[in-house]
Amino acid sequence: MTVQEFAQKIFSDVREMSKSALGVTRLGYTEKETEVLRYLESTARNLGLACRYDVAGNLWMTLRGKNPNLPGIMVASHADSVPEGGNFDGLAGIVAGLCAAKDIQESQRQLQQDLNVVAFRCEEQGLIGSRAILGTLKAEDLQRRYRPECKLLGESMQDCGIDPQALVQGKAYLYAKDVAAYFELHIEQGPKLELSDQAKVGLVTGIRGNVFHRSIRCVGETAHSGAIDFEFRHDAVAAVAELFSAMRSHWIERLKAGEDLVYTNGVVNTPASQSFNIIAGEVTFSLDIRTLSVETRQAFYRCFKEEAAKVAKTFGVKFEFDEAFYIEPSLSNPSLVEKLEQAAAQEAVPVIHMASGAGHDAGDVAQQGIPMAMIFVANQNGSHNWREAMRMEDFLAAVRVLTRALKNFN
Amino acid sequence: MTVQEFAQKIFSDVREMSKSALGVTRLGYTEKETEVLRYLESTARNLGLACRYDVAGNLWMTLRGKNPNLPGIMVASHADSVPEGGNFDGLAGIVAGLCAAKDIQESQRQLQQDLNVVAFRCEEQGLIGSRAILGTLKAEDLQRRYRPECKLLGESMQDCGIDPQALVQGKAYLYAKDVAAYFELHIEQGPKLELSDQAKVGLVTGIRGNVFHRSIRCVGETAHSGAIDFEFRHDAVAAVAELFSAMRSHWIERLKAGEDLVYTNGVVNTPASQSFNIIAGEVTFSLDIRTLSVETRQAFYRCFKEEAAKVAKTFGVKFEFDEAFYIEPSLSNPSLVEKLEQAAAQEAVPVIHMASGAGHDAGDVAQQGIPMAMIFVANQNGSHNWREAMRMEDFLAAVRVLTRALKNFN
Repeated sequence: MTVQEFAQKIFSDVREMSKSALGVTRLGYTEKETEVLRYLESTARNLGLACRYDVAGNLWMTLRGKNPNLPGIMVASHADSVPEGGNFDGLAGIVAGLCAAKDIQESQRQLQQDLNVVAFRCEEQGLIGSRAILGTLKAEDLQRRYRPECKLLGESMQDCGIDPQALVQGKAYLYAKDVAAYFELHIEQGPKLELSDQAKVGLVTGIRGNVFHRSIRCVGETAHSGAIDFEFRHDAVAAVAELFSAMRSHWIERLKAGEDLVYTNGVVNTPASQSFNIIAGEVTFSLDIRTLSVETRQAFYRCFKEEAAKVAKTFGVKFEFDEAFYIEPSLSNPSLVEKLEQAAAQEAVPVIHMASGAGHDAGDVAQQGIPMAMIFVANQNGSHNWREAMRMEDFLAAVRVLTRALKNFN
Repeated sequence: MTVQEFAQKIFSDVREMSKSALGVTRLGYTEKETEVLRYLESTARNLGLACRYDVAGNLWMTLRGKNPNLPGIMVASHADSVPEGGNFDGLAGIVAGLCAAKDIQESQRQLQQDLNVVAFRCEEQGLIGSRAILGTLKAEDLQRRYRPECKLLGESMQDCGIDPQALVQGKAYLYAKDVAAYFELHIEQGPKLELSDQAKVGLVTGIRGNVFHRSIRCVGETAHSGAIDFEFRHDAVAAVAELFSAMRSHWIERLKAGEDLVYTNGVVNTPASQSFNIIAGEVTFSLDIRTLSVETRQAFYRCFKEEAAKVAKTFGVKFEFDEAFYIEPSLSNPSLVEKLEQAAAQEAVPVIHMASGAGHDAGDVAQQGIPMAMIFVANQNGSHNWREAMRMEDFLAAVRVLTRALKNFN
């Protein structure tokens, strides 16, 4: 069986196994996810890999190296999906690891280190499987429901035979010292590669961190839209529009200066009592600033607060900020990226460098000091929806880059 | 009893009669409104005025002139209020008419024409009482509820002994040829007079018309806030903010050029499925453009559509417009305004000229070709809320202007 046939069979079997009304549904810590892991385990065993489940139920499929005492290499991604999502988001990274293991094994070449192909559980609900073994899962995470109709995370874990309490004691089950390198292949969740005429494979420079607010409140003064002239208004909608517009200009400036930055106000709402003939006395809105650079994040967030203060003065409104949440950026390990780049050159696969805007298990792995690098593959039709697509030729090119980098590793 | 005592007694009695948890509540076509009309009728009869109810239940209180065959003068306003509203909105105009009638009668001076002090019903629900006698009420108006908990308008009318079907046949019960002049005194529904250091009484130049949309839709593309870079976005929130901001600049220009204009986007909402980490693929918002000038309205509305087209191109979004509604502006009759101005000079009451941004019964009266003028009195704490206030001295100054104008009429 060629690598292509091998990959296509897994994609097709797992798709069949997890098919839903639209796309596929394999939610974290459900029987469906377990079923997929069992299937992957059996596939890996057929390749001759040693399989085990860790304390969080993640599947480790190991191709033994010459010296199993050396820190191992991980090639990991997640087995779960969003509801009615695409088949490749997550699964492609696991299949890539298995393809590499198959190729290495069939090439009669043994790596120095163990090669661990890892299928993480429950990435889509907050990187749960990876955080659980890194010791960063919190007791409150167990008390959350992914969707209102879902069980509590802790209950779902128990149903899968996992002891959730063991995972929230701050105890790590995976240590940086035991991992020489962590690779993750994933479909890109934006259109950059798809629209690029240079490359369909991306080498990730890092995973953007962010600062976000769920609900900032702009408070003005409710009044009659006809009876209140310009000079007497404290219009929360006009104020917020001005703020957004000013921030967009600042964003464009920073992009021109070459900074990595995305800026989003995803939610904007006036109260239900508003009407076309009432000047809004209140607007709530969200803020999300993402960048690879902590300095850029700090500077742009400060800029946002300064602009808000200016707007507050001009419009006679005030801004009430809810809690700010921070996620730290995770930079790829430059020497791993270089290895991938050299492998791409050897395999004659054109690549571009790019940031990852979405979070990945690779991000919290890197936060624990494990050297990390990611490979992106062009996707069509966007991410987290059933129309998500990936061309087999692009996937196989990325797999060649990964495999070559593993073979060259030492 | 002085005019001041007379006015204060009516305000106080009617407030007592219609007191609610907060402020007063006398909804159109309810027993409470009927009770207020009966009280006003009895007050007017005590003054010696002839009273009658028209086909829509509006109360006509007539001080006979020397020549009742001449077209009469109307001094009108409405008896109803919004729920938990202020006592002066509407009532002040009726009391002003009764004060003028009392003063004229006590001055032993008979006007040439009948002076009709009219208490309209149900103004707050869409100028219902006045439209009913002008023949502009529609069958569909009867099928509306003011609030979800209210009866249908038609049912409420029937409960008050009125035949609603008689009012929606397009038949007028009041003709322009029978009215020499229509005056309406009202509290201002903005802060202009309250904040003015020149005058607490305003002469209304006209009632602004408008063009409005309840729900314009901006359609972009939903996407991940982190993974989609600037150049790939079709962000409906950013697009709408840019549009609002551009329109604000145009508005400021037109104000500088001396045009009468107010511009409001009162409602802005992203779908419930939006989150801080999703670029909005949809925003719905309202639009309200009000001005005394049909030319300004047309030009500014055109400008809005042009800006929307520009923004659509820049952001790769589209705008879907719902139905546009138009209300025509109603200009005051210049010769009536001049009469009021002369009267104010005689009474040494400082006045300023101003537009009315809110609608009034005077507006549809003027639309039927009846010469109209309005007098505004400063109000404190805004309109359509229970904290609404009016100083008695300001009211009495406005009543003096009105009374003098009536005495001088011929």
